[in-house]
Parts: sequence; structure tokens; C-alpha cells
Amino acid sequence: MSSVAVCPGTFDPVTNGHVDVIERAAAHFERLIVACLRNVGKQPLFQLDRRVELLRSATDHLGNIEIWTFEGLLVDFCRQNDVGIVVRGLRAVSDFESELEMAQMNHRLAGVETFFVATSPLHSFLSSTLVKEVARFGGDVSPFVPPAVCDSLRAQFAANRSV
Amino acid sequence: MSSVAVCPGTFDPVTNGHVDVIERAAAHFERLIVACLRNVGKQPLFQLDRRVELLRSATDHLGNIEIWTFEGLLVDFCRQNDVGIVVRGLRAVSDFESELEMAQMNHRLAGVETFFVATSPLHSFLSSTLVKEVARFGGDVSPFVPPAVCDSLRAQFAANRSV
Amino acid sequence: MSSVAVCPGTFDPVTNGHVDVIERAAAHFERLIVACLRNVGKQPLFQLDRRVELLRSATDHLGNIEIWTFEGLLVDFCRQNDVGIVVRGLRAVSDFESELEMAQMNHRLAGVETFFVATSPLHSFLSSTLVKEVARFGGDVSPFVPPAVCDSLRAQFAANRSV
Amino acid sequence: MSSVAVCPGTFDPVTNGHVDVIERAAAHFERLIVACLRNVGKQPLFQLDRRVELLRSATDHLGNIEIWTFEGLLVDFCRQNDVGIVVRGLRAVSDFESELEMAQMNHRLAGVETFFVATSPLHSFLSSTLVKEVARFGGDVSPFVPPAVCDSLRAQFAANRSV
Amino acid sequence: MSSVAVCPGTFDPVTNGHVDVIERAAAHFERLIVACLRNVGKQPLFQLDRRVELLRSATDHLGNIEIWTFEGLLVDFCRQNDVGIVVRGLRAVSDFESELEMAQMNHRLAGVETFFVATSPLHSFLSSTLVKEVARFGGDVSPFVPPAVCDSLRAQFAANRSV
Amino acid sequence: MSSVAVCPGTFDPVTNGHVDVIERAAAHFERLIVACLRNVGKQPLFQLDRRVELLRSATDHLGNIEIWTFEGLLVDFCRQNDVGIVVRGLRAVSDFESELEMAQMNHRLAGVETFFVATSPLHSFLSSTLVKEVARFGGDVSPFVPPAVCDSLRAQFAANRSV
Repeated sequence: MSSVAVCPGTFDPVTNGHVDVIERAAAHFERLIVACLRNVGKQPLFQLDRRVELLRSATDHLGNIEIWTFEGLLVDFCRQNDVGIVVRGLRAVSDFESELEMAQMNHRLAGVETFFVATSPLHSFLSSTLVKEVARFGGDVSPFVPPAVCDSLRAQFAANRSV
Repeated sequence: MSSVAVCPGTFDPVTNGHVDVIERAAAHFERLIVACLRNVGKQPLFQLDRRVELLRSATDHLGNIEIWTFEGLLVDFCRQNDVGIVVRGLRAVSDFESELEMAQMNHRLAGVETFFVATSPLHSFLSSTLVKEVARFGGDVSPFVPPAVCDSLRAQFAANRSV
Repeated sequence: MSSVAVCPGTFDPVTNGHVDVIERAAAHFERLIVACLRNVGKQPLFQLDRRVELLRSATDHLGNIEIWTFEGLLVDFCRQNDVGIVVRGLRAVSDFESELEMAQMNHRLAGVETFFVATSPLHSFLSSTLVKEVARFGGDVSPFVPPAVCDSLRAQFAANRSV
Repeated sequence: MSSVAVCPGTFDPVTNGHVDVIERAAAHFERLIVACLRNVGKQPLFQLDRRVELLRSATDHLGNIEIWTFEGLLVDFCRQNDVGIVVRGLRAVSDFESELEMAQMNHRLAGVETFFVATSPLHSFLSSTLVKEVARFGGDVSPFVPPAVCDSLRAQFAANRSV
Repeated sequence: MSSVAVCPGTFDPVTNGHVDVIERAAAHFERLIVACLRNVGKQPLFQLDRRVELLRSATDHLGNIEIWTFEGLLVDFCRQNDVGIVVRGLRAVSDFESELEMAQMNHRLAGVETFFVATSPLHSFLSSTLVKEVARFGGDVSPFVPPAVCDSLRAQFAANRSV
Repeated sequence: MSSVAVCPGTFDPVTNGHVDVIERAAAHFERLIVACLRNVGKQPLFQLDRRVELLRSATDHLGNIEIWTFEGLLVDFCRQNDVGIVVRGLRAVSDFESELEMAQMNHRLAGVETFFVATSPLHSFLSSTLVKEVARFGGDVSPFVPPAVCDSLRAQFAANRSV
């Protein structure tokens, strides 16, 4: 078994739910590549560089993590880096069908297998979108994101308001 | 990474959908233990020995498979055999929540991680229950189960009818 | 196009939701066969003959309905009677996946097509099981079932209580 | 507003998830009636008296709780006791549709309103059924149920095994 | 029990489904605040003032209703006005998970409790979005919205077409 | 029974999943009108003319198909053409509720009935959106769309890249 897996996402920004999935995947593979999607389509809140920095600071307690960026198809990233396993967290039924659709497409396109892990129930009501919505209006998001992300969100929205 | 996983089930009887999940798990672990549950609660169609024989014949093309039986809690089986990963197939949304509930319970009870794989769409409408229902009334289940299972179902229901 | 369809069910007993589906199907086919399943597995509340009588009285305003009984596989009934279309009502998401599974199995086994119709929202919270539960304890089910069914439920449960 | 609500269930046995719902409802009503269903249909693990005792010990920190028993229809219980509000916890999508069906039926039958509360995510993977399954095989259920329930489950299953 | 609740929404425009939820909530609280969200994100069809006017005309038969506007986080609105209960309608499974996520976030952020009520089945297929889509192309929406909303939609889209 | 049905969609572009639904509907009606929506709202990848051409080439093996275009409400199209039946494919639970909502609205607005067919499991993970996403980054979509669509997607995205 080639013991490498990739954990892909936009991570705009990384939440405690993402960190939970990354920790659980890292415990079962020799190397875990966290692949941060550039996401040309929609305008992210944080630039790619900043998202990678925040990921790095949130996962520096894990020894077998590498943080990379990619654009385009995940299966191309997997092929180029000879990785056959994708790990994704599943929070809720509403995630389930689009994730299943993607997993089946990736398997069909390139034989890439997806392993889904059940997100801890503590984080099941977290999403980057909801966290940003709360932070935008000055709500306290410190229970939901790593400390550096909390600071960055505060700085980002303060900057927006002062404009 | 300890490269062993367990793929549990009642397998009453094994279907092509189960074989698909077992093949995909076997491709990514050094050893895959297929654990057949004795299932004291409800009356199975096939006795445990027969279910294991049918599993063995359906997976004898795979070199890294072991077929064991168990009763009681899956987490106890995992602890006794020092296995930290369970692999389960997910067919549909209706599977999803009870599977998530079990995975979270097993993680909480014993730190056992569950990796879910998306069953191939070809098998997404298969279940042991539906296959038995069709076979009971003489329907042709050969596209849905391995050949030995097809013969066993025919023999089983012919025996029932002759009684 | 062969303009015949079959609308199968256990109808134990027929509810206003069933009648709605039957009326809507009857409006679009030349002949609609309502096929009442004998259901050897679980013990029905009403015997097959009584279920057919109640169906007949609930649908006697429709000219192109025939009420038949069957046991075994629905696809065998379809083949024997040269019917290629099954009509089923869909009330809710929880119906959806098992219905889809059955429809795909029936298509695979015998090329039988299933047309699903969306039950009127007025009847979306009705099921034979819930109606029987309410009637068992003397609740008023007259808004949910045809008059003859209402009387039969009352008589049935009064008989049970006097035993 | 008549500030009384009823929180019904079988409570076989009460879990930390039930206690969470009861605490949250008790905070918003002057009186909260916890109504324990006799449940003539299926054989419960604990007799009604024992289920009530366990409920009492799990909620004795709450001043405005009353624990009653009932059988038959919940709407009859509501009418007899002049209660217009039912409170139910919602854990997951799979609960949702049958709960909605019951709520709409109860509103239609007797104008009784149901308020659903979202169970804390910590308890979202808990059910009495799963807890009993784990306890039956000697698993540790102390994180999931009140202490007295934990002891009762241990005693109950020890008794079963010694038979 | 502090008998005040808030029923929040964008109400762009208010439908008969919203009115049903407001009426049912108003029957169980001494005061019900209907809180109309300014919604800076997406462009509404009706300006905030107009949405409030339409809400007012649709609910003027209810004595214990107050209609307010807010922007930002609902929990901030609740804290400023010392309201601890939010009432929301649930129509369908697809509403359920995002609503649960919001309710759990609001409970975590500020101890605000959400009571969900099951929308009447008659209104279960209504949404402001679908109503606007139908009205945009001249369809008759009079069965789905209060009379004043019907007129406003007609005027709004006539104005658009004459431009 | 008037044996005409309409199969509506945006078809941007037509996939093998659409073709499967069209073929199955065509087998059961004398005439099947495939109605291609102009879709003024969002910017399609292919112009209406091109979408119709691709539909035509994908269905020219079927003798009883007509391909028309429409804008506005589907029920108006149905009324103008005296069609009382709409056929739609259902792939997954996430399709289900919005489809049900539309079907119930169309029935209420104009008595138009919707028959849903279960998409073949082979195509259950296909959507025009996912196919375009894969093609945009040069992935091979030939197993998922008719040959002419495959060529058109390649040409379209090559043109985009050379700009």
C-alpha cells in the first residue's frame, strides 16, 4: 500500500472542523498532502498565500503533513504526484450527494479512491461560509477556528469597515 | 501507518456491491480483514459457515484478504486484533446517517476510525434484502451476486418451497 | 404507446393519498390496473378481500380502473399482463431511495418503467400506518380516508376491543 | 400564552440527549410535563416504572418538571391536560420526516403545536437503541447516559447473561 | 418564562407560508417580533420599506405582532432586545440542515434557542423564490401570497417590462 | 389518453443521462417534445441554437422526438401546445425536493402532471455542471456525453484558452 493521501479544499479559511479531519487522516497515513485549491471561479476572502500560511500554523503540531497548492482538476494533481487516495470529511447529508458525485467521477476519470471520514459532531455545524458570516458582523468565532485564523478574520473585516 | 483495515458486515449473502467495496479497500491496505457478523438478533437466511464460504469463493482472486467471524461489538473485535480502521461502503443518503452515528460511536468508544467509500453507481440499487426478495419469488439475480451465491439462493428457496 | 399502467400497493387500507395518486394516473392512461399485493410477509390489518372491496368503493367514480390482486414479484405480474408502466406516488424524501431502488431493479429485471407522481401536499403527511395508529386509539380519521374505510377501521378496532 | 408544554417519549432509557432537550425546553416554559409512553406495541427493555424512576433521577435538578405516563394518542393526553404545545428534539434528517408527519397529524387532529429543538451536536449520534446495543455487549456507555441509567443497564444485562 | 419570540426572515415578499408560521407562533407567545432582515448581500426584489409594509398588511389581523427591521447577526438583535427564542418554519428536508446549523451556531454564540414549527402541508411547496419566478412570467400567484403582495408583484414586473 | 409528453431542460449541454431519460420517455409516448429552455437568467456555456443542434444529433435515432425551444413558464408552454404531461429524470435526493416543489406548483397552476423517471444508476453521478467543470480543465468527458458534445466542449474550451 502506498501510504500517501491528499486532503483537498479551498480552506478559506481553515476551521477547527478541517483541522479535525486533517489530524484524523494524518494518524493513518505516512504522508498527508493538504492541497489548497486556488479556486479561480469565485472570489475567496483570503488570498492563496494567506490561506496556506493559516493552514501551516494550524497544523504545525503534525509531523507528516505537507501543504501544497493546486489549480484545475484534483485527479490531475493526484496523477502528477502519484497519489491514489483522497480524504474528505462528511458533516451532513447535504454534503453527501455532491461529495459522492465527485468521488465517483474521480474514480472513473483516474482510478482515484476517496475515503470519507465522519467529522466529529462537535464540528458538525461549522462551515467556512458560516464562520465568515459571523465574523463579518463582529461575532466571536474563537471557538470555531484556530487562533491565527481568528486574528486574521478580525483584521480582514476591520480593514473592510475602515475603507 | 499500520496498514490493516477491517470490512465488517452480515453478508447474508455477499452481493456484487460488497465485492466492489472489498476489492477497492483491498487495493489500499496491506491486509484487509473481512469480518462476518454472527448476528444473534435476527434470523439470517444463511448460516454463518455458509456466509463465510460464499465470501471466500467471491474474494479468492484477492491475495491480501482474510475472512474472520465475530459477535458482539465491532470495536471489541478491532481492539482484540489491533485494527484501527474500519472500511464501509456508502450507497445512498438513507445509509448515511446510521453509518455516521455508528462511526462516531466507534470513534468515541475506542478511537477506531471509519473510512467510507462510495459504492460504484452500478451497484447503488443493490442490497442483500432486495436480492433475497427477488430470489424468493424466482427472479433472476445472476447480475447482482457472484455465481456461487446465485446457486445457493436458488437451492435455498427451492428447499423452502418443497417443504 | 400501450396505454396501460399498473398502480401497485398493499392498500391496508386505501387512504385519500392513494386515491389521489390513482385519480391522477387514471387521467393519463386508457386503462389503469390497481394491483393489490397479498403480502404474505407481514400480517395486514384487513384481509385481501376486504382491502379490494374498500379500493373498489373508493374508486368507483373512475371508469377506466380495474382492481386485481397479486403475489410474488411485481415484474412477473407486469409480464403476465403485458404491462410496461408502473405508477407510484412519492410523498417524501424518505420514500425516495427505496422507491428508486425498486424502480431500478424492476427496470433491470424486466424493462418495466416506473413513473413517479408527486402526491398532493394535502396528503403528504398521510400513511396507512399512521392512519391505523390513530384509529386504533379512537382518533378521528375521517379527513384522511374514504368514508367506507373510516367505518371499517372503527368496526375493526371496536371488534378488537370487545375481545 | 399558556406556558405549559409536554415533552413525550418512550425513554427506554433516558439518554444525555433526552436530558439536553428537557433542560432546554424547561428553560422556556413555566411547567414542562415529561410524558413517558407505556408503549404497548414493542417490548421495552425497562418497565414503565423503572423508566420513570430513571427520568426522575436524571431531571431532579430541574424545578419545573413533572413526569407523567400515558398510553394511546399524544393528542388525547394533550386535550385531557389542556396542553397545546409539544416539544421534540431533532437530531438528524432521518428523524425529520416522520416527526413532521406526526406534528402535522397532531395539529390536524387537535390543534396541538409541535416545537422542534435542535439537539446539541454533542448528542447528535446518540439514540436509546444504539446505547442499548453497546451496553448489551459490555461497552462503556457512561459518556452517553446519566449515572443511574448506566448502572441500570449494567444490572439489566448482567441479569440477562446469568440466566 | 419570558414570553417573547422573534420570527426572522427576508420576506421578499411575504408568502402565505410565512403568514401561517407567524400566526402559529403568535398563538403561543405574548409578543411576537417579526424581524425583517435588510440583507445587504443579495439584491432583493422589494426594498426593505416595502417588504415591511407588505408584512404589516398581511398580519394586521394579529394583535400581538410587532414588525421590526435588523441587519447583521440575528443573535445581536436578540441580545439587544432581550429575546431568547427564535421561531422558524421548516418546510422540507433541504431546509433542515442549514437551519439546524444556524440554530446550533446561535445557541453557541448567545444561548438563543430556536423553536422550529412544521409548515402546513398546503404551503410546503411555496418559497419566495418560486413565487417570484412564476410572477415574473405573468403566472397567477394569488393562491400563494396575500392580496397586497399579489398586486405588488404584478406592478413590479409590469414596471420591469415597460422599461 | 393524449399520448404526448414534454421533457424540458436547459441541456447546456445534453449528457448521456439526459439521453437516457429521453429514450425511456420516448418509448412510452406517441410523441415526445424535448423543450430546450432559453434561460435568460444565467449565462449558458452554449447558445440556444447550439444546444438544440447537439440535442438533435444525440436523439436522431429516435423517431417520435421533436425538439422545440421555449422561454418563460413551462406551464405556459404546455398550455399553448396542449400537453398535459411533463417527464423529468430524478438522479438523487438533492434533486428531489426542488423537483417536487416545481411539480406541485405546475399541477396547481395549470393541472399539468409530472412523471418522474429514475435515471439509470450508470448516469446517477452525471450533471451538466460537473461535465463542464471536468472539460474546462481538459479532463476526458467522452464516457459521459454524446460524441458531438465531446467535440463541442473541446472546441469551446480550446477557444477560451487561446483568447
